[in-house]
Amino acid sequence: MAKKHNHKRSLVDPPEITLGIDLGGTKILAAVVDEQGRILGEAKRKTRAERGVDDVIERIAKTAQEAVANAHLDMAAIAAVGIGAPGVADHLTGVLEFAPNLPDWTNIPLGMRLQQLLGVPVLVENDVNAGTYGEATAGAARGYGSVVGVFPGTGIGGGIVLDGRLWRGARNAAAEIGHMVVLIDGPQCGCGRRGCIEALASRTAIERDILGEIRGGRSSVVTQWIDVEGEPITSGVLARALEEGDPVVTDVVTRAAYHLGVFTASLVNALDPECIVYGGGLIEACGRFLLPIIRNTTYRYLIRPVAPENLPILEAALGDNAVAIGCAMLASQHVRALQE
Amino acid sequence: MAKKHNHKRSLVDPPEITLGIDLGGTKILAAVVDEQGRILGEAKRKTRAERGVDDVIERIAKTAQEAVANAHLDMAAIAAVGIGAPGVADHLTGVLEFAPNLPDWTNIPLGMRLQQLLGVPVLVENDVNAGTYGEATAGAARGYGSVVGVFPGTGIGGGIVLDGRLWRGARNAAAEIGHMVVLIDGPQCGCGRRGCIEALASRTAIERDILGEIRGGRSSVVTQWIDVEGEPITSGVLARALEEGDPVVTDVVTRAAYHLGVFTASLVNALDPECIVYGGGLIEACGRFLLPIIRNTTYRYLIRPVAPENLPILEAALGDNAVAIGCAMLASQHVRALQE
Repeated sequence: MAKKHNHKRSLVDPPEITLGIDLGGTKILAAVVDEQGRILGEAKRKTRAERGVDDVIERIAKTAQEAVANAHLDMAAIAAVGIGAPGVADHLTGVLEFAPNLPDWTNIPLGMRLQQLLGVPVLVENDVNAGTYGEATAGAARGYGSVVGVFPGTGIGGGIVLDGRLWRGARNAAAEIGHMVVLIDGPQCGCGRRGCIEALASRTAIERDILGEIRGGRSSVVTQWIDVEGEPITSGVLARALEEGDPVVTDVVTRAAYHLGVFTASLVNALDPECIVYGGGLIEACGRFLLPIIRNTTYRYLIRPVAPENLPILEAALGDNAVAIGCAMLASQHVRALQE
Repeated sequence: MAKKHNHKRSLVDPPEITLGIDLGGTKILAAVVDEQGRILGEAKRKTRAERGVDDVIERIAKTAQEAVANAHLDMAAIAAVGIGAPGVADHLTGVLEFAPNLPDWTNIPLGMRLQQLLGVPVLVENDVNAGTYGEATAGAARGYGSVVGVFPGTGIGGGIVLDGRLWRGARNAAAEIGHMVVLIDGPQCGCGRRGCIEALASRTAIERDILGEIRGGRSSVVTQWIDVEGEPITSGVLARALEEGDPVVTDVVTRAAYHLGVFTASLVNALDPECIVYGGGLIEACGRFLLPIIRNTTYRYLIRPVAPENLPILEAALGDNAVAIGCAMLASQHVRALQE
């Protein structure tokens, strides 16, 4: 509706279509998206990062073209492209500075190279930032102006949207909320430091704590399903164990959820957003168990009490499409900003 | 210089003068300030909160008028007034919703009432927010667009400036950074919860820990100067003890500074600001000792390493005038926003 008030565009303009791409360590997902964030066509492909940067960039372009074809459109109909990558992206230059899950990807001018292949302006963004923006514009938090996204999985990623805009920080390094310390000198984190929320409440941290309990002599149903010393305790396994009421998994996940709640309250005490969105692998599998504890703890830890309905803690709605949709919505915002 | 590019004002316009007021629990400070944040005239008075709201508001107005007279100006020369109070202020309505240090101050329409007395538009703001804005526009962090202010004293206050604007949050409750939890289930905080940074590194927390050490049998030079069971261990006492190398005070303050450093890194990991400003009573007295430890720890705890010169951790420059100057600068920004 807001479009009608934008004097730069007439009512007969076609709707703005953009393309969002989620470049992951294992797969590439491309989605053609309309102004409301609805998917008009998609395509998917394995990343095959081991084949090198050039090959991956070609595979990205092919996936993008396929998604456009699947939407029964021409690349000429695409106003802009957004691509989200698991790393540090300079959205102004389009350079992917560093991506821990994509070996050899250091200072790659991804935006420029894709732009050459597709003939469309390309915006490069951190994937979790993009996912949060997707949820804030077309997902669970649609309609909220300031949103903090928390995505617990193997690690804990985050995104911050303030006044409807992604907050990227001074060095495109903002929203690394997984490495906010909630327990000084606490357990070792993958980042090499101690006590980060990621070291207390990611799936990896939960796995470590369950293993500790089992090695300490407690018995868990999980050992009947997998070889816990050799296989990962996936979010799916956790969900099954929670459903069966396994005491070890229940204890450990309850504590992780409590930690996430205290952490969420800290985020709110600092930023006072309109809402919080929780997503990511751990929440998708075990959100029904985690979210009530997270919510309960958060509201108790706020310095300025707020009624839950005035600060909703929402479950992400876009699932695996969040990054691609968020990238498309960012590309769309970028185009609008250029037109103004 | 930026003014020359503002086509709404001609070069012959008089400089914009605003008035800032710091309403504290014990004193009222008013300062007439120019566009650069320079003080042209000041006045001071005791708050005498015990005499009630009406009396205090009259005292505020008198102090304001005195500051204007001391600047050899007329109230007609003042473009706007900003007032900072220790509590929750709704800057849009001018209502001071709640002020813990000013008994009976609940939902006071402070802006409207002062506006009636002074005949000038009045902006109401939280005092630490205003102090941070002062440092960001006319103090230590002048020239930086995004700034986080940390003010350890009796408690720990904070302020967040992003893209040159104060971030107030969705409910004017942002920047309560003193109640971000850094040690889950840690020491009791004044807020009733546990493990807030305020419970670990405020002057009050340092005092508690020194007392604990002394009661545990360690001896400190502090007991020769004051009756630690009856008198407060002020920041001045801490500074003297640090200078004399007292082991108990040195240990406790070192640990507090370490906690502040880890906490600062968490803030940077979340917000990625251009700089950090440290001020407040504890820093004014003991900054020479605390700041090197805070800086060293912060840079070690960043998830994305940054050269110190690219993320300076500055000492506040405006001292007791920060809130008044910040309020005046906010009033000035408010007037400019209305003109545009």
